[in-house]
Amino acid sequence: MCAIVGVFGAKKASTVAYYSLFSMQHRGQEATGISVANGEKIRLYKKRGMVADVFSQTTLDSMEGTCAVGHNRYSTAGSESQGDAQPVFAKYKLGEISVVHNGNLVNKNEVREELIAKGAIFQTDMDTENIIHLIAKSQKDALVDRIKDMLTKIEGAYCLAIQSRSKMFVIRDRYGIRPLSLGKLSDGGWIVASETCAFDLVGAEFVRDVNPGEMLTFEEGKEPVSEQVFEPDYHPCAFEYIYFARPDSIIDGKNVYQTRLQMGRKLAEETPAEVDLVLPVPDSGVAAARGYAEGLGVPFEMGIVRNHYVGRTFIEPTQEIRDLKVKLKLSPIKHLIKGKRVAIIDDSLVRGTTSKQIVRMLKEAGAKEVHMRIAAPEIKYPCRYGIDTPTKSELISANFTVEQIAQKIGADSLGFLSIEGLIDALGSERTYSLVSFDGNYFAGGNAQSPGCTTV
Amino acid sequence: MCAIVGVFGAKKASTVAYYSLFSMQHRGQEATGISVANGEKIRLYKKRGMVADVFSQTTLDSMEGTCAVGHNRYSTAGSESQGDAQPVFAKYKLGEISVVHNGNLVNKNEVREELIAKGAIFQTDMDTENIIHLIAKSQKDALVDRIKDMLTKIEGAYCLAIQSRSKMFVIRDRYGIRPLSLGKLSDGGWIVASETCAFDLVGAEFVRDVNPGEMLTFEEGKEPVSEQVFEPDYHPCAFEYIYFARPDSIIDGKNVYQTRLQMGRKLAEETPAEVDLVLPVPDSGVAAARGYAEGLGVPFEMGIVRNHYVGRTFIEPTQEIRDLKVKLKLSPIKHLIKGKRVAIIDDSLVRGTTSKQIVRMLKEAGAKEVHMRIAAPEIKYPCRYGIDTPTKSELISANFTVEQIAQKIGADSLGFLSIEGLIDALGSERTYSLVSFDGNYFAGGNAQSPGCTTV
Amino acid sequence: MCAIVGVFGAKKASTVAYYSLFSMQHRGQEATGISVANGEKIRLYKKRGMVADVFSQTTLDSMEGTCAVGHNRYSTAGSESQGDAQPVFAKYKLGEISVVHNGNLVNKNEVREELIAKGAIFQTDMDTENIIHLIAKSQKDALVDRIKDMLTKIEGAYCLAIQSRSKMFVIRDRYGIRPLSLGKLSDGGWIVASETCAFDLVGAEFVRDVNPGEMLTFEEGKEPVSEQVFEPDYHPCAFEYIYFARPDSIIDGKNVYQTRLQMGRKLAEETPAEVDLVLPVPDSGVAAARGYAEGLGVPFEMGIVRNHYVGRTFIEPTQEIRDLKVKLKLSPIKHLIKGKRVAIIDDSLVRGTTSKQIVRMLKEAGAKEVHMRIAAPEIKYPCRYGIDTPTKSELISANFTVEQIAQKIGADSLGFLSIEGLIDALGSERTYSLVSFDGNYFAGGNAQSPGCTTV
Amino acid sequence: MCAIVGVFGAKKASTVAYYSLFSMQHRGQEATGISVANGEKIRLYKKRGMVADVFSQTTLDSMEGTCAVGHNRYSTAGSESQGDAQPVFAKYKLGEISVVHNGNLVNKNEVREELIAKGAIFQTDMDTENIIHLIAKSQKDALVDRIKDMLTKIEGAYCLAIQSRSKMFVIRDRYGIRPLSLGKLSDGGWIVASETCAFDLVGAEFVRDVNPGEMLTFEEGKEPVSEQVFEPDYHPCAFEYIYFARPDSIIDGKNVYQTRLQMGRKLAEETPAEVDLVLPVPDSGVAAARGYAEGLGVPFEMGIVRNHYVGRTFIEPTQEIRDLKVKLKLSPIKHLIKGKRVAIIDDSLVRGTTSKQIVRMLKEAGAKEVHMRIAAPEIKYPCRYGIDTPTKSELISANFTVEQIAQKIGADSLGFLSIEGLIDALGSERTYSLVSFDGNYFAGGNAQSPGCTTV
Repeated sequence: MCAIVGVFGAKKASTVAYYSLFSMQHRGQEATGISVANGEKIRLYKKRGMVADVFSQTTLDSMEGTCAVGHNRYSTAGSESQGDAQPVFAKYKLGEISVVHNGNLVNKNEVREELIAKGAIFQTDMDTENIIHLIAKSQKDALVDRIKDMLTKIEGAYCLAIQSRSKMFVIRDRYGIRPLSLGKLSDGGWIVASETCAFDLVGAEFVRDVNPGEMLTFEEGKEPVSEQVFEPDYHPCAFEYIYFARPDSIIDGKNVYQTRLQMGRKLAEETPAEVDLVLPVPDSGVAAARGYAEGLGVPFEMGIVRNHYVGRTFIEPTQEIRDLKVKLKLSPIKHLIKGKRVAIIDDSLVRGTTSKQIVRMLKEAGAKEVHMRIAAPEIKYPCRYGIDTPTKSELISANFTVEQIAQKIGADSLGFLSIEGLIDALGSERTYSLVSFDGNYFAGGNAQSPGCTTV
Repeated sequence: MCAIVGVFGAKKASTVAYYSLFSMQHRGQEATGISVANGEKIRLYKKRGMVADVFSQTTLDSMEGTCAVGHNRYSTAGSESQGDAQPVFAKYKLGEISVVHNGNLVNKNEVREELIAKGAIFQTDMDTENIIHLIAKSQKDALVDRIKDMLTKIEGAYCLAIQSRSKMFVIRDRYGIRPLSLGKLSDGGWIVASETCAFDLVGAEFVRDVNPGEMLTFEEGKEPVSEQVFEPDYHPCAFEYIYFARPDSIIDGKNVYQTRLQMGRKLAEETPAEVDLVLPVPDSGVAAARGYAEGLGVPFEMGIVRNHYVGRTFIEPTQEIRDLKVKLKLSPIKHLIKGKRVAIIDDSLVRGTTSKQIVRMLKEAGAKEVHMRIAAPEIKYPCRYGIDTPTKSELISANFTVEQIAQKIGADSLGFLSIEGLIDALGSERTYSLVSFDGNYFAGGNAQSPGCTTV
Repeated sequence: MCAIVGVFGAKKASTVAYYSLFSMQHRGQEATGISVANGEKIRLYKKRGMVADVFSQTTLDSMEGTCAVGHNRYSTAGSESQGDAQPVFAKYKLGEISVVHNGNLVNKNEVREELIAKGAIFQTDMDTENIIHLIAKSQKDALVDRIKDMLTKIEGAYCLAIQSRSKMFVIRDRYGIRPLSLGKLSDGGWIVASETCAFDLVGAEFVRDVNPGEMLTFEEGKEPVSEQVFEPDYHPCAFEYIYFARPDSIIDGKNVYQTRLQMGRKLAEETPAEVDLVLPVPDSGVAAARGYAEGLGVPFEMGIVRNHYVGRTFIEPTQEIRDLKVKLKLSPIKHLIKGKRVAIIDDSLVRGTTSKQIVRMLKEAGAKEVHMRIAAPEIKYPCRYGIDTPTKSELISANFTVEQIAQKIGADSLGFLSIEGLIDALGSERTYSLVSFDGNYFAGGNAQSPGCTTV
Repeated sequence: MCAIVGVFGAKKASTVAYYSLFSMQHRGQEATGISVANGEKIRLYKKRGMVADVFSQTTLDSMEGTCAVGHNRYSTAGSESQGDAQPVFAKYKLGEISVVHNGNLVNKNEVREELIAKGAIFQTDMDTENIIHLIAKSQKDALVDRIKDMLTKIEGAYCLAIQSRSKMFVIRDRYGIRPLSLGKLSDGGWIVASETCAFDLVGAEFVRDVNPGEMLTFEEGKEPVSEQVFEPDYHPCAFEYIYFARPDSIIDGKNVYQTRLQMGRKLAEETPAEVDLVLPVPDSGVAAARGYAEGLGVPFEMGIVRNHYVGRTFIEPTQEIRDLKVKLKLSPIKHLIKGKRVAIIDDSLVRGTTSKQIVRMLKEAGAKEVHMRIAAPEIKYPCRYGIDTPTKSELISANFTVEQIAQKIGADSLGFLSIEGLIDALGSERTYSLVSFDGNYFAGGNAQSPGCTTV
């Protein structure tokens, strides 16, 4: 996942970036950072932790300037290092530069090896460092030409905001895999953000999505300049609708909540269940469960309570406390469930561990039957474009049939949305990226490539 | 609000208390504390902050013992002091004692004045200090008799857990205003807690509610001894069902979620609205909105997203960011709402400030009409038994008619559940405390008393 | 040890108290606290840690008022508790009160038992709590009379500053065991402090010592009122000169550095050594070593460097790092010491552990002979008046002869100042408290009493 | 200043590096860091703050490996950035590399411009980054050859420890400006450190100084290999003796304390004073004051007490508190000074601000006459090799005569050690770097160069 934001022409760009990142906290909680340019200098602050913990008023006040780029980093297995936060900043021939990146470059390793052979040094494993090196090493004079030069050398999924001391450049890859939207601030400035929910919080108006293959250039005193640097080959990632994005966001023209509702309705058509009650796994399963209940004509209830004070507790439980990780987060309403046949709707099923615990929890709460329904197809392939899926051997659907999985998780039945059902729910306007379901790698590299790590 | 827990006969009483308090975090986030007795000594740790932040593994490991009492403190206006956390501990004639208290003593000031006249000293304004002084100053020999002595001198709402170095005493006032339940730990120990959701997390089995006027005495190697120290005059607080308790808890025999559903259904009967959509104010309005939608036969949608990463942000917004406090927490799904007539269901309406912002938010999201419905009666009186309501002058329903309030908050219509409707939804088994609605002060003191502060 | 300060009639009493405590940090590093009265209210802030770490500008700014009392707590074995910081504050019949105390009450336990029998409760083991209880329980009307009442009930060593919302009372016990001086602030206010070095930092002028048995009452718009509440029986503690006080302080009319010089000279008379070089154990042995070298007519060198960045390091050393605790603090200058016969002067010898390591360090640095001289008599008795000496069994001089100790610590010779020599160096104006050396307990209780704990 | 350490072949290299840096804390308190290599990977931890605060047991335990390099950073004006801590780490063609550097490269800007022109990117302003880039961009195959290649391109003062995943390289510039010594750990490993005091703490034996122009290569299972990569042109910095180094260290064969003693004796010859007492400005002036007193045959006293609890206090003083910064640190013993003619000995005089406050302090303490003597020549030139001197306009001796300065600081007389006197005290074995005194820039660049910043 990850989230990026770019702000240009705002009086307090750092504050606008802060609240934007705050509203996109769900896309990454590991680290966050903002850099601000004031025409003369770029100032950067980044750290492990959540937005509200990392930034203080003092820090933001010290970051004066009208242009800001910011980033929320999603927690991935390999990234223990303190250094793996963005923006990535450097001094180079043309002065100072700061870059934020959401996505995954599939030719990252080849590019890095080439750079290293020429004497480049790297501080981290982030592919964002590749991008800065490619810009710094370009033979072109102007930054805009160096950026274009760089773009010819990277492949994969990327949304970029690149900041010099006085300009900002925003690029979305030709496939439009990760979302990126343009908004207008009420005081006349501009904002780009991974999700439109950022616009709602900071009082910006949604203008349009950034097009696949488009580069936007922001310069003081001018309107943003749009240039189509690549032929679009639109493949927005279906997972944004299934799981990543906030329900109130509009991704490539479609509202997330409504799309999930539609997936739930389709799921009811494809794999109905004879139940008394439909329950969501909160919060991400709510909309699909609503659609599923509507499709079946069966009552929907918020029969599982989500504890929102979770934070991180590292206290070792006593022996008597079972399934702690799920129980800390989810708690069933026994009176509602007791003696009922229930359908439980989740957004996806990856390893099956949590599902097993949820089924057990519902049975212990007295459910007569538990029918699990997943508002997405079976995940059979690792993704290369920025979704943190495990390797194939860990993907339960890559290794077992639906019936086998149902048995493993203890459900009385299990059903997935079909790929066709998903496509139907998403609508026919676009060709979506469905690699996790169909293994069809379309953007650079080849399908045998071992998988992906997320930036 | 506040939450208390008492654990007796558990191998790691501190850990059981920790997870119990964790599951009752919604009842108080200002401060928390646990004290543990091991037969020889009581160890106490308490601090401002939330459970998961206050306690570390090291701290809990240092608190050995099989008996623990713990407390979550609700944030109230007057309690800036560091000292206002519980348990309250003291050394006195019989050794060491530690007390946790949920409720509000209506004769607190009279008792304190009397104690002070006799030379007592106080560190805080908490009425829990009164309780310890009364025990220490009792002329009786045994602790159990001193406690009974103390109970004759306090009036109001209280649930108490009192710990000596080897025993635990649990008392619920004769009215049963605040909830308190008894559970059995799977390793043979006992637990009492303000809400049953604590039992579910720590793997305890619900045994029964502690009776109004009952004292339970826990001693090693013996079954808990029950004694009815007062004639019961059962008046559980209706607000537990309306707002305080977690939906999965069972308070005095009734599940909270189901009771809220029923309030919503009743609300639909009493004050229907011609709408296309019913939305809850998440999370506390969800169950009532479900009932309301069901009653009307109109679709229910989670049309307002709640941001759960809120924490506390103290960053001053830019001028462009309006209604920040509500927007940080709530965000409407515009696509769903646009052009629709919506009913928005909240659990209560106190000052009207938030309601006004929610109505404006929905109108800005494109709602054609906004009909606000409150799943509780009008709050016209301050409470004296532990609910942190403002003074009468701040209670909007104490000063304006329903129509005037509708206009003030900008709603196309406004409706409340009637007192009768609430009673009907709660059922006829009990007489509930409805002081905030009917001003009927039944437990000590007199109705002219100026109000209450919460412990 | 411990330090107290009282400030009256200063514009920013909290800041004056802060800097006073800062300058007396050497008297106690475990905890610190200040309370400030502004005529209407007392505000208290106290915490574990050193003065500069505990107080922030924000904290001090929030403590408005012209009267402040403050305390530095010395680290003692038993005081793990967070609560053991001063001032001790309470609300009682006459309003609010705050007390700081330096010293040790020898009848603490008897008083406490009596109070407890009457129903008093205690939060800590500090005898300062006794004092507040005695004041609160007095039958007298005026605070001043209650204080006098309290004074008739406590025995031992005490310097007290007691603050109400508008007055301050300062008392020194009849023996004058612990030091206390009165100064005048340049803006007209008053200050009392354990050491005069506090006056130098805050720009106050030394007026005089507080007399043994004297009570000073400070009230707005009036000069301080002095009252002799006890017949003086002056016994200032010799340890203030030997070890506790800062060399620039003037304690009961004598400058500490000069007194130490004199002890060194006397030591040279009594127990000379044939050496090439005299070295102090820095910093407390410096003045005596200077006197000793002068007495012998042998060069004095700062041949052991003290590392002042010590702080607390808790890193487990490798096996190769021997005597880490001493080496972290002290480091010999080998070139200076190699092949020389050296006398090493320390201020006292308690357990002998450190001395042994110092002797070994000097021998490893190449010293041909190491002659240890102690500028104080042998410590043979535990103190009851506030010096944190260990029990008799741990006092090496209570259990071994000088020759045996010399052998144990590996010194070529060992010498102590005689009691007569110490008296001679201190001068004949006063009778000093020498209990640690002669076991002569003069102030309350009896000599068989098992020892003391420090406040 | 700054300090570096390199450890090779130690079981717990991180702990050895930790204690070494701890003992060299006086050379830099702004930031610290250690990187450890275990043959496969380099792990780095660095942060603003002092050694004991930055590293925890957990951090050190996570840094397994037998080779460590570490650094203490001295606070300099320009280095606000979080990034300006060392070691500097990078991944490059041959794997991973980590570098620590003490000194100052005089051709830093030229080198950086050339690197940037070729497309290099920089994160900081530290010249250590130049060094890594030069290594990474070298066309040579082996790391040792790349390092030699790099050495041909840098000019100025440097002591370097360079770590790959399995080797360590240590280099001292041809002038030997900054100190660097080699020691042997008792378990068979090796250590290099800026000062020998590090060896004493970790139990290492001093072997010899690293030679000017020498490179030492450490490889597992082999003895260190020495190679003379440059013709030596020995110019150790006189300031190490005057001010920087700890008195117990041995720098290029001379003990610091003894050298300072000698400077004091020389100072007495050159600029005697008719005084009753000689006082040092503690701690750095102690040895010279001892020598001065000995030279004059006048008593030496530690007449100014240094407060070692200083830390950083940021509390705004009241108006009455004058000269706070000096008074927080230094306090005169009035009884000793009153009515006396005193000589006060300091190690150097840069801007004159502190000297003025010290003279005033002594006069206020009652000194009849105050004669200031400086155990170093007048500082007339900024240094380019790593001493953080201010620009020429701020150097009081570059702008005023000795008499004018005496008047400005209020001293009755002022005297400096002559350059010849300093050379005499240092001895004739070496030609010392005296640029601050004589302006003779010998190592690269030219004398007109505007000055230096410290690394």
